[in-house]
Amino acid sequence: MDERSALRRLAAALPAAGDDAALVDGLVVTTDMLHESTDFPAGTTRYTAGWRSVGASLSDVAAMGAKATAAVAAYAAPTLDEDELDAFLDGAVDVCEAVDAEYVGGDLDTTGEFTVATTALGETDAPVRRAGANAGDVVCVTGALGRTAAGLRAFDAGETERGNELFRFTPRVAAGVALAPHATAMMDSSDGLARSLHQLAEASDVGFDVSWDAVPVHDAVDEYAEDDADRREMATTVGEDFELVCTVPAAAVDDARAASPVPLAVVGDVVDEGVRLDGESLADEGYTH
Amino acid sequence: MDERSALRRLAAALPAAGDDAALVDGLVVTTDMLHESTDFPAGTTRYTAGWRSVGASLSDVAAMGAKATAAVAAYAAPTLDEDELDAFLDGAVDVCEAVDAEYVGGDLDTTGEFTVATTALGETDAPVRRAGANAGDVVCVTGALGRTAAGLRAFDAGETERGNELFRFTPRVAAGVALAPHATAMMDSSDGLARSLHQLAEASDVGFDVSWDAVPVHDAVDEYAEDDADRREMATTVGEDFELVCTVPAAAVDDARAASPVPLAVVGDVVDEGVRLDGESLADEGYTH
Repeated sequence: MDERSALRRLAAALPAAGDDAALVDGLVVTTDMLHESTDFPAGTTRYTAGWRSVGASLSDVAAMGAKATAAVAAYAAPTLDEDELDAFLDGAVDVCEAVDAEYVGGDLDTTGEFTVATTALGETDAPVRRAGANAGDVVCVTGALGRTAAGLRAFDAGETERGNELFRFTPRVAAGVALAPHATAMMDSSDGLARSLHQLAEASDVGFDVSWDAVPVHDAVDEYAEDDADRREMATTVGEDFELVCTVPAAAVDDARAASPVPLAVVGDVVDEGVRLDGESLADEGYTH
Repeated sequence: MDERSALRRLAAALPAAGDDAALVDGLVVTTDMLHESTDFPAGTTRYTAGWRSVGASLSDVAAMGAKATAAVAAYAAPTLDEDELDAFLDGAVDVCEAVDAEYVGGDLDTTGEFTVATTALGETDAPVRRAGANAGDVVCVTGALGRTAAGLRAFDAGETERGNELFRFTPRVAAGVALAPHATAMMDSSDGLARSLHQLAEASDVGFDVSWDAVPVHDAVDEYAEDDADRREMATTVGEDFELVCTVPAAAVDDARAASPVPLAVVGDVVDEGVRLDGESLADEGYTH
């Protein structure tokens, strides 16, 4: 059983789960576990690890259109080094401050591989789910895609300072709250744009026609992309960018854009079926966490 | 830096943390990470692992005197086996049902060692902290101690069914809520009675005189204890029993006992300083998670 099948099973078993975060009486809760070997390239500082792991959970809160309130982390490493722990905590606290949430502590443990489990909490009276998109809506993306893909290239090239900088994204909590009144469906792009579109399509029972020219690509992608095909892959399938992908009625786009504190790009239309990029079928491929 | 120093550092850095759980505007949140090599003896079923790992976090909610509302878990294993995952989820759901909380899902991941991170949420208007005990109060324990020590012996002896049964404790959420109006300080006994007393003593700036005869010992301890000294160690230092240790003004003991849905044993007195068992200094020793 791969992770996607397992997650589907989890969602089916638990009615409160199955979206970016679970909802319990207006309280949003979401948890993630990250591992050194799969989530933190060599050169990732503990400050960046704290920022990014807590940020990933805050991004799930943002994807529900909820205000983020608090986060906790369980930190496990082969040895509990004081400087590393302090740096991790600084990163966790700083990313929470960046979205007006409070980092309220956690658990510590020794284990073979550096592992972090983060949980973020939020509040909303009107959550935006993955289901809700309608044919005739447009599909939008906040910010720009490909930042993590560029960060991975930077780490590969030994440019660790640049890699760390690119890995410390700002969770789109303010944008999620601002877009919530306008969006019909929303999720974060942590699995990449292609897979996010497929997940929204499945949850909402719709399709998407997306134009590559309209997809906002992060400036750093151009520093590392080898060619156009590589550039497209960096922006659409590598994922972990933690931008928001949402659908908005065409008539509400101007209001949504005015409300959003970050650029909001209309990348295509919601249609009856199929997920296409420039008219060609877009494979359901992406990073599997 | 050992885990206790690291946790102290964490608590000092974060005013909202440092007790059994953190508090954010009446919301209680706590997180734990458990690993196969340190927390689940060979023979532990995934059902028991789900029950126990989620139960450990629910116990931290109980220790604040809070109502438990919800829990999530991040599950990582070398392979995502369908039956194992289902069993884990069943255990997680069942322990939540046992304390009237809702299991609302989580995250899945592959990793080298079976690892679970759980987060539990609760609500309280009047949290009971580790600080607050006064000389003249009495110190009480819910239920009976040594259950996990006996469970470990059962697993060691190859009696896996018995071991699993002993490992599936009921978190003392109902007792915590019932005791909260009477208790001056409270925590759970997850680090063992000896260490719990030292932690309460440090937080409240008091001491304890405890009588061994008054300590409630779990029936299963007598099945496995080799002699009296072993029996005492199983009940006082092995820990992970997830009972509540609380202090209550002497005049409130009858009311506290009447309110508690489980037996409440008065095991000693709160004094000005020192932690003693039968008049002898009780070492700050116990299980370090």
